[in-house]
Amino acid sequence: MPDTELLTLQIDHVGILQSRYEKVLEDHGYDGLLISSGAAPMRYDDDQSWHFQGYGPFLHWTGLAGYEHAWLLIRKGRKPLLSLYQLVDFWHASLELAQEPWLDEFELRFSESRSAPELDGLSQLAILGEPSLLAGLSGDENPGALCAAVNETRVHKTAYEIACLAHANKLAMAGHRAARDAFLAGGSEFEINLAYQRATQQREVDAPYNSIIGVNEHAGTLHYQYYDTAAPAKSRSLLIDAGVRYRAYCSDITRTTAGVGEGRFAALVQGLEQLQFRLCKMVAPGVDYVDIHRKTHLGIAALLGAAGLVSDLSDEDMVAEGVTRAVFPHGIGHFLGVQVHDVAGKPVAPPADAPFLRLTRTLEPGMVVTIEPGLYFIPSLLEPLLSSPLGRHINQSLLDELQGCGGIRIEDNLMVTDSGYRNLTREAEA
Amino acid sequence: MPDTELLTLQIDHVGILQSRYEKVLEDHGYDGLLISSGAAPMRYDDDQSWHFQGYGPFLHWTGLAGYEHAWLLIRKGRKPLLSLYQLVDFWHASLELAQEPWLDEFELRFSESRSAPELDGLSQLAILGEPSLLAGLSGDENPGALCAAVNETRVHKTAYEIACLAHANKLAMAGHRAARDAFLAGGSEFEINLAYQRATQQREVDAPYNSIIGVNEHAGTLHYQYYDTAAPAKSRSLLIDAGVRYRAYCSDITRTTAGVGEGRFAALVQGLEQLQFRLCKMVAPGVDYVDIHRKTHLGIAALLGAAGLVSDLSDEDMVAEGVTRAVFPHGIGHFLGVQVHDVAGKPVAPPADAPFLRLTRTLEPGMVVTIEPGLYFIPSLLEPLLSSPLGRHINQSLLDELQGCGGIRIEDNLMVTDSGYRNLTREAEA
Repeated sequence: MPDTELLTLQIDHVGILQSRYEKVLEDHGYDGLLISSGAAPMRYDDDQSWHFQGYGPFLHWTGLAGYEHAWLLIRKGRKPLLSLYQLVDFWHASLELAQEPWLDEFELRFSESRSAPELDGLSQLAILGEPSLLAGLSGDENPGALCAAVNETRVHKTAYEIACLAHANKLAMAGHRAARDAFLAGGSEFEINLAYQRATQQREVDAPYNSIIGVNEHAGTLHYQYYDTAAPAKSRSLLIDAGVRYRAYCSDITRTTAGVGEGRFAALVQGLEQLQFRLCKMVAPGVDYVDIHRKTHLGIAALLGAAGLVSDLSDEDMVAEGVTRAVFPHGIGHFLGVQVHDVAGKPVAPPADAPFLRLTRTLEPGMVVTIEPGLYFIPSLLEPLLSSPLGRHINQSLLDELQGCGGIRIEDNLMVTDSGYRNLTREAEA
Repeated sequence: MPDTELLTLQIDHVGILQSRYEKVLEDHGYDGLLISSGAAPMRYDDDQSWHFQGYGPFLHWTGLAGYEHAWLLIRKGRKPLLSLYQLVDFWHASLELAQEPWLDEFELRFSESRSAPELDGLSQLAILGEPSLLAGLSGDENPGALCAAVNETRVHKTAYEIACLAHANKLAMAGHRAARDAFLAGGSEFEINLAYQRATQQREVDAPYNSIIGVNEHAGTLHYQYYDTAAPAKSRSLLIDAGVRYRAYCSDITRTTAGVGEGRFAALVQGLEQLQFRLCKMVAPGVDYVDIHRKTHLGIAALLGAAGLVSDLSDEDMVAEGVTRAVFPHGIGHFLGVQVHDVAGKPVAPPADAPFLRLTRTLEPGMVVTIEPGLYFIPSLLEPLLSSPLGRHINQSLLDELQGCGGIRIEDNLMVTDSGYRNLTREAEA
């Protein structure tokens, strides 16, 4: 059972959602909104299903990540109706619903049927969820404008959500420490994954996203998705990007560790961390997130110069000529919440110089974002540079030495406060 | 790299499939068959996908479980065309295709597109796979009679398939030994899952099915799907049902272990194992699998009597009155192959007395089946019995004592030979 403070905050959270949703319903001319929690699809032509993880709007209200075929009905001026599907059979265990105070804020039902609850007295109903689960229901299915407004209710986190995200950081940091230890002890990617699971007490299938665990050159594949079961002869570097779900809320943290004797790489890791600290300090209300992304490129340029990787080229030229894009090809971060890449981050498309940026908004208090600069040695991106006229500015022998370390990413989760930010990850580390 | 013998068997396997498929094409009036490997769906309204596991017919030919958006084209009198999708980007790693001899039996292509290969010169084409991936292709989509005939090609395993299934058993048994050790050391279900992963070197997401790991009363939930992170005060029993995929082929093995000092339960485990041995000995060509299921009920009845759980009721009456159904509610087993519940097992529906039986065929050489009797203490099934007139035959105090142990299942994987069977699991255990 979490502490009383969190449980009290959760009651406030439900109240805040109720008023946000009532406004959305009012604005869009609905008197009710039915949300499906979703269900894991079956593998095609098989009787095995994927492991379920719930649908955003349902998680936002309930935090219940494991409930398939559940329904939530939001109405103006009435308690939300929460209908939980409980299959009564001898094949499966039912999730044990913790008897927590927030449940009193709901009209709670248990149902042995997967069907939606009766929807009496509602004339204008919208229905949200995976279309295949909404068949036969009468109401507007996933109306675009309403969906966008519902997503917008998730942008400014309540105090309860911040507390959950902070705790998800705390849990994940225990995993990151264990992963680092396993790496320094010479463990394989597979072993590091086990160490992370053990320390977080989180099953791989329950993680908010596939943990990226790259040793040596694998650290240079941004979404590296396999785990070698054999450790390399020499463990030069570890990049681990892994989170934890707590009451549905995700952490999303990356750490990079240099192996023993990798002084040059360690110095670069340290340099990138200093840059990451400076970027975190930019997080404040009124700041355009795209500016943080652009500042990252200048910071990476300075780092490339200081490390002797690039010479006789100004920081601005390195950015303009695409040198920094070659070593930092992704965006500086994204929204974070009950989905790892939380919704509503891109009301406008990212600018041409940041095509992969997942967040293009001006920061406001209550938003939670990641700040995750990276610096990678990716052959397919570096080779065109090296064979171009810019190649003469690049220290190829140093690059060759570092290429076996793959790359670096350092990622924290930050909340925008009224005057600046709270770094939920560094707090958890302390 | 597997041994030469296996690689040679695989070439024979491809040849056998080619001739089986040519006959299917001939019989059904097609000159070509295009198979999609499939793709993992995205979670609804999210940018995270489930972890991919391939589609049966594609696995049957290639054994390549991790390839999304791949295609296989089977034609009469020509080598099969295998087109593997290889996204060339800096986000993801490509699977490294082991350079093995079987590839020479295919016309191999790598494609940077998810589209199907060009289908020139084919006038009568059938297309198999998940419908959403087949959009825009011209050909008959998943025609029922052809699909059934294709599934039938998987029923009689080739020598290569048997070798793979045997090895999948060997790998899994290492996991079962480790799981048992972790349980006897007082580990939680979560810890036992980690021990199984470590010993099998298999990630949870790559397992052929969700491992069932039930300690104490959880062993009585047939498809128990959670893992407690805390061990109980006293570890009385462990039921673990877990397999391994090897070159796409699945093992599916269950073991039950009694905790220290659980003499009565241990005796029941031993009794059920003796029954399981006897049932395995029934496996032979010409035997109706339903008869093995029915014999199981008589064996369970005898066990209930011998254990003093039921008295003054003949074995036949225990079966007829539903006493054995209450403690053994599932089927005795199923086909096994590249899917854990392999296809084509139920050309006819199971009989009324075995509604959950997944295999209703007469056994033939080359079939691979599981034999998995169980004996569980499931309150929802026992209570109606206890409150009926049959209740007086049941030793409730003994039942109460055993209920905390949940239940027992013992499951092996057997191949039907020309004269009897090979028990791939016990061979792996030796």
